Amino acid sequence: MSADPFDELLEALRCLPGVGARSAQRMALQLLERDRDGGRRLADALATAMRDIRRCRRCRNFTSDEECRICRSDRRSSEVLCVVESPGDVLAIEAATAFDGRYFVLLGRLSPLDGIGPEDLGLDLLGERLDEEGVAEIIIATNTTVEGEATAQYLREMAESRSIRTSRLAQGVPLGGELEHTDRSTLAHAFSSRLPMR
Amino acid sequence: MSADPFDELLEALRCLPGVGARSAQRMALQLLERDRDGGRRLADALATAMRDIRRCRRCRNFTSDEECRICRSDRRSSEVLCVVESPGDVLAIEAATAFDGRYFVLLGRLSPLDGIGPEDLGLDLLGERLDEEGVAEIIIATNTTVEGEATAQYLREMAESRSIRTSRLAQGVPLGGELEHTDRSTLAHAFSSRLPMR
Ligand SMILES: [Zn+2]
Ligand SMILES: [Zn+2]
Repeated sequence: MSADPFDELLEALRCLPGVGARSAQRMALQLLERDRDGGRRLADALATAMRDIRRCRRCRNFTSDEECRICRSDRRSSEVLCVVESPGDVLAIEAATAFDGRYFVLLGRLSPLDGIGPEDLGLDLLGERLDEEGVAEIIIATNTTVEGEATAQYLREMAESRSIRTSRLAQGVPLGGELEHTDRSTLAHAFSSRLPMR
Repeated sequence: MSADPFDELLEALRCLPGVGARSAQRMALQLLERDRDGGRRLADALATAMRDIRRCRRCRNFTSDEECRICRSDRRSSEVLCVVESPGDVLAIEAATAFDGRYFVLLGRLSPLDGIGPEDLGLDLLGERLDEEGVAEIIIATNTTVEGEATAQYLREMAESRSIRTSRLAQGVPLGGELEHTDRSTLAHAFSSRLPMR
């Protein structure tokens, strides 16, 4: 029996985080009964995004161009570089703060047990940027998890060997929590009271 | 400025019921970071479903064929016809009961104020089926709203004029529910239509 398009849609919707059998059904019926245009638009947007969105060649954030908007902008300072784990962290910091420097997105964190080493996080690319762009300060905004802290230490050593100042977001970000899910004002406070890294 | 594929994806995801700005972002990042195959599959499933899923010509339920599986099956009885408002109701009844008759899906309910009359619910098509298929009983499973009740009355008259038996789902306190948390009108109805205990 060939796959039924309705069943196939239910199954496919469940790849979305937080969507179980019940919400998949609610979503499918809603689109089919009341919003086919929305469903078609979502199909197109998904196909385009999955095909065109890649990593920025300078900062590894998501973009559909060679370089992302922030890297292309000449209104952002090259002196301060904020290093984060994921694209969601960039969105969170942009929404919560007035930071006008640039970013570097690790897309992960050091995790020797999982075989994730410095090269997987593009730290060679980061090293080149530090050597070339006159960065004066690195704001290390990795998550406050064990692996995020280990990554932070590694970044601090990279910076120190180049005499670059480092800072870490102030505690206030909940321990063991993920930046992406931190409420705005906590994040804004932690960002502005960042401390020199020891 | 042309639409950014990431922003466009966020916007498009919000056509899904229950998906706000925050979950749209979580979904987009999850697909881009960890499940591009899932994202592509969802794009295809949506496009196929929006294009191919139409109404069954006999029962008006969703199907990608001329007639739906239930109408095509020769293991379902033609004697009992269950009339529901939406395809979701069919799924709910199929999952909860051993009903082995057939369905008719109104895809709405009578609502003169909104200009929704009998022909919008396919009641002419239903009339033809009643005249042709030897239906002995109609189970009227429209919702217990004012409009659902008005629709039920209309269906009962259609059946009576053809000497077809009608039944309506029993109404009362939900099984496993607490009286204390049952809404007033349900409770009042259940109280006044109490039955001798066996
Ligand atoms: Zn970039
Ligand atoms: Zn059918």
